[in-house]
Amino acid sequence: MKFTINRLAFINALNNVLRAVSSKTTIPILTGLKLVVENDQIILTGSNADISIETTINQTDGEYALVVSEPGAIVLPARFFIEIIKKLPDQEVSIAINDGFQAVITSGTAEFTVNGQDANNFPHLPEVDGTSQVMIAPDILREVIEQTRIAVSKQESRPILTGIHFTLANGQLTTVATDSHRLAQRNVAVPTSEGQQYDVVIPGNSLTELSRMVNEVDGDVTMNFTDNQILFTFGQTKFYSRLLEGNYPETSRLIPTSSETTIELAADSFLASIERASLLSHQSRNNVVKLTINPSLSVAKISGNSADVGNVEEAINAELMAGNDLEISFNPDYMRDALKSFGSAKILMSFTSALRPFTLVPADDHDNFVQLITPVRTY
Amino acid sequence: MKFTINRLAFINALNNVLRAVSSKTTIPILTGLKLVVENDQIILTGSNADISIETTINQTDGEYALVVSEPGAIVLPARFFIEIIKKLPDQEVSIAINDGFQAVITSGTAEFTVNGQDANNFPHLPEVDGTSQVMIAPDILREVIEQTRIAVSKQESRPILTGIHFTLANGQLTTVATDSHRLAQRNVAVPTSEGQQYDVVIPGNSLTELSRMVNEVDGDVTMNFTDNQILFTFGQTKFYSRLLEGNYPETSRLIPTSSETTIELAADSFLASIERASLLSHQSRNNVVKLTINPSLSVAKISGNSADVGNVEEAINAELMAGNDLEISFNPDYMRDALKSFGSAKILMSFTSALRPFTLVPADDHDNFVQLITPVRTY
Repeated sequence: MKFTINRLAFINALNNVLRAVSSKTTIPILTGLKLVVENDQIILTGSNADISIETTINQTDGEYALVVSEPGAIVLPARFFIEIIKKLPDQEVSIAINDGFQAVITSGTAEFTVNGQDANNFPHLPEVDGTSQVMIAPDILREVIEQTRIAVSKQESRPILTGIHFTLANGQLTTVATDSHRLAQRNVAVPTSEGQQYDVVIPGNSLTELSRMVNEVDGDVTMNFTDNQILFTFGQTKFYSRLLEGNYPETSRLIPTSSETTIELAADSFLASIERASLLSHQSRNNVVKLTINPSLSVAKISGNSADVGNVEEAINAELMAGNDLEISFNPDYMRDALKSFGSAKILMSFTSALRPFTLVPADDHDNFVQLITPVRTY
Repeated sequence: MKFTINRLAFINALNNVLRAVSSKTTIPILTGLKLVVENDQIILTGSNADISIETTINQTDGEYALVVSEPGAIVLPARFFIEIIKKLPDQEVSIAINDGFQAVITSGTAEFTVNGQDANNFPHLPEVDGTSQVMIAPDILREVIEQTRIAVSKQESRPILTGIHFTLANGQLTTVATDSHRLAQRNVAVPTSEGQQYDVVIPGNSLTELSRMVNEVDGDVTMNFTDNQILFTFGQTKFYSRLLEGNYPETSRLIPTSSETTIELAADSFLASIERASLLSHQSRNNVVKLTINPSLSVAKISGNSADVGNVEEAINAELMAGNDLEISFNPDYMRDALKSFGSAKILMSFTSALRPFTLVPADDHDNFVQLITPVRTY
């Protein structure tokens, strides 16, 4: 194996694959990165228990200035290898395998010899056929992930809740996450063929990595579904994630359909108020902020107190208030996460009572995106 | 007490004082920040076991738009108070004391009430008279600190070595630090009066904070010396540090005056080579890099190896080499720190033997700045 490549372009490709390499793993070879050098391309692979990423560098892509003199394959310690490539002095780097599984890395007057492993010992990636596939725009995929992943559970006690529930049927994708204190749900139109219908639960951590990677992708992302894996393909990269086993709880009945009190306000300015109030609530034991709405007086405020530190009160600038007077307390961190997912949009918050979950939806589209938060009982 | 002030300007002043407030302290009031409001100014004070910082905000300084309605004083929890001021919604903030030691902080529609303490319980700052004072330009002060503090010891076993030794006599300031593995020494001309002579050891941590603060100062810094304190005054700020007790070891005889091998090279490109080699040495147990100089062949290289990971070798681009052939091993982290202190200057490295300390000096000024490193015995 021997090839020469542009160093900066190579670093970008390596960084993509590095997302799948965990530093702590019980399978030593998975701290490595597999390089397979063929006559006209290099295939880089990284893998951990949840995801595998494979990126192809083509000789035809001029950015890489790839010149292969001899095909071959090796597994190199991923993080150490990338650190070396990053610090090398020259614009180009040459990599060759000498006797045994050692890579000789040369750039300028610097030469590193790095011990590697036999590429045949690297686990094989799952086989996914191309029959069950659906296309989605990368910015839409990113948006639905970012808007729902905040409600993914971090507790391993109910593993199914550490995933996001993807259901796809009749040209609509619905994503749902809940940690049983809050819930996020998003619907988007996605072109499907007659009869295509999928129902999978994808680990939240996998989707967080995927969301970062599709940030700067041109062209659609292809999703391929199998029984226990999903494959996202975009550009020169394949992103595999395992699926979570088990049935996701039925969530649609959790979202209230009527309300007694509503308030409409700008998500970003309400977020700033919540962040101020949480300075104080974070100093107290129970981390709770109280929202008081008096539609009859057209007055709303948030307040919090901590016996040791002090208290806070702030009038809220609301555009519309309607219904019954209400005092409701909630975890301001949940509210902050939910508000961030709306950006600077105007939102409608709807309440039934001080002890029932309440919802946040975009003021101009009540049907396709909802954040639900369970209040805190303070008495 | 009651005043109104421009919020952003106030944040800058608060951040200065915050440098002296430690979050962990056995004296609870020292987690606080003292505000003393007088008719035409506010004095902010923070203090910890090593340093105290006092900044004055003058009504005449238009940037602050300070309006005092009532003088007074209070101690407020420093970090919490600054977090609140940072997040408030309006351009201005008003602060008043209500009954007891509570501050009411108002900005826009937000109102915080924060529990404080009696300002009379805050420790008094040391008294420093103005008779023993010396002036120094802020950029020079910063440079001598930055160039010597890298060699300050982090071990509390010999407390005196955790400081920087300042000696001032005959118009020259000499600063020295050593952790007994390496040493840094710098001389600068500083105007002194007839007979002025000082010899003090200032904690390295104090000087690190000071160095950050004098970064953007206009006008000279005044140093006032007392038996157990030093006071640096610049702009509207007074910076007090305690001095370390005890005698600093005699260091001048440690610096070799002759050499058997010399090499001249650019500090920055040699630094890049050292950082590459240390990628590998950091993976091995003893963290050592070897430098080989063959003046007869005009060849120099660095190399390192780690049995588990691999090895590295790099030819060094040197401008001049002279004297005996030499192989010498050292801790690349010490070399990195030393090289950084020369920026992109050309340096002269001088060696006597593989087991004796060697020196780095600027190629164009051998007398006023030296970094000394003790080699590592590898056999």
